[in-house]
Amino acid sequence: MAHRSGAPSARTRVKRVHENAAYDREAIDAIHDAALVCHLGFERDGQPYVIPTLHARLGDRLYVHGSSASRTLRAVSEGIPACVTVTLLDGIVLARSVFEHSINYRSVVVLGRATTVIDPDEKNAVLEAFTEKLLPGRWADSRPPTRKELKATGVLWLPLDEASAKIRVGGPDDGGTPDAELDVWAGHIPLTVRALPPVPASDLKEGLTVPAYAKRYKRPGLTDVPLPG
Amino acid sequence: MAHRSGAPSARTRVKRVHENAAYDREAIDAIHDAALVCHLGFERDGQPYVIPTLHARLGDRLYVHGSSASRTLRAVSEGIPACVTVTLLDGIVLARSVFEHSINYRSVVVLGRATTVIDPDEKNAVLEAFTEKLLPGRWADSRPPTRKELKATGVLWLPLDEASAKIRVGGPDDGGTPDAELDVWAGHIPLTVRALPPVPASDLKEGLTVPAYAKRYKRPGLTDVPLPG
Repeated sequence: MAHRSGAPSARTRVKRVHENAAYDREAIDAIHDAALVCHLGFERDGQPYVIPTLHARLGDRLYVHGSSASRTLRAVSEGIPACVTVTLLDGIVLARSVFEHSINYRSVVVLGRATTVIDPDEKNAVLEAFTEKLLPGRWADSRPPTRKELKATGVLWLPLDEASAKIRVGGPDDGGTPDAELDVWAGHIPLTVRALPPVPASDLKEGLTVPAYAKRYKRPGLTDVPLPG
Repeated sequence: MAHRSGAPSARTRVKRVHENAAYDREAIDAIHDAALVCHLGFERDGQPYVIPTLHARLGDRLYVHGSSASRTLRAVSEGIPACVTVTLLDGIVLARSVFEHSINYRSVVVLGRATTVIDPDEKNAVLEAFTEKLLPGRWADSRPPTRKELKATGVLWLPLDEASAKIRVGGPDDGGTPDAELDVWAGHIPLTVRALPPVPASDLKEGLTVPAYAKRYKRPGLTDVPLPG
């Protein structure tokens, strides 16, 4: 994947060349949609904080579940500078040299102001997106949020106009170098996320069976590579 | 898991109660050692940045591979305030209500000053730790780093004295509430990381076979749960 379009700003321009950068929304959206967890970065009293949380994209807004961060942000109606990063680990890259060892991954960094969502209808739509992202089909099956629950849910959003993706795929980069002549096996080991069978709640009401949408759970955006034996 | 010891500082104290906090090094080290990727947060020109990178723990120091961040840090010999967060996604929690949906995870947040590693011997030891973390057994098999490569590798470290872990396990938290009477299936879906068979480099020297240590790769720290069919 080459630089398919220009970086939206100097501070989002990807500088290392052996990895691949993408600034188009198609690539960025695909990574956001495939990742379940993001890392939200913000500063408070001179200390940066990075908090894992859920995210979902709706149109041109990246929403993050920010119950912890919301306390920090509540006083700041205009929002504060933030960074939301998602990373999908796709494999381990084994080069002949220690120096060229690496990982295969897809990541997106979004810079911008994080603003608290106040409107209950917008919050409701975001909770639907979060829930459907966890498990497509789940929203219609669950008890909808009450007004009180909506109020208790902290949600932030950032625009997607200052974002960049980095993607590394395939084997090591030391082909064609003197290292390639060494008697060292080189290649890569793909990693994938798999679901185990659903575990019923210990106090599950009798007579309820695992819904079809939960039976064959597969992370969206992942290649369907068969597992070894 | 209960609060097994006190939080090292007010700003690392975990505030949400339905998840479990741990401040002891045993719990923190186990999560650091099991995670391959961390997220490094720092600030520059008023903008927080969160960068995915590799990490490894050696004794009381958390080292992170910081080639991008190092440029930022090079001018600051005393280091800058930073936050390193690792998160392992362990499952999806399906409650009866949308509001109680969640994920199972293990995460650690470390706050502190990130300092650049200068000493080449220390850098060499850190690269060994990074490499052995990617794949135990790999260091002895690969070409060691040259002096020039060591110089080109950016490594930072943070102390581990201001760290906290959060761990969520098991099913939904709505047992015993009126929601538990709803006709909604509830439970959790465990997620696990699995390796696919190693892929040889396209230009692999003839006669080299996959080393034993790469054949049965398993992420350390993961429970060996059999996959379904």
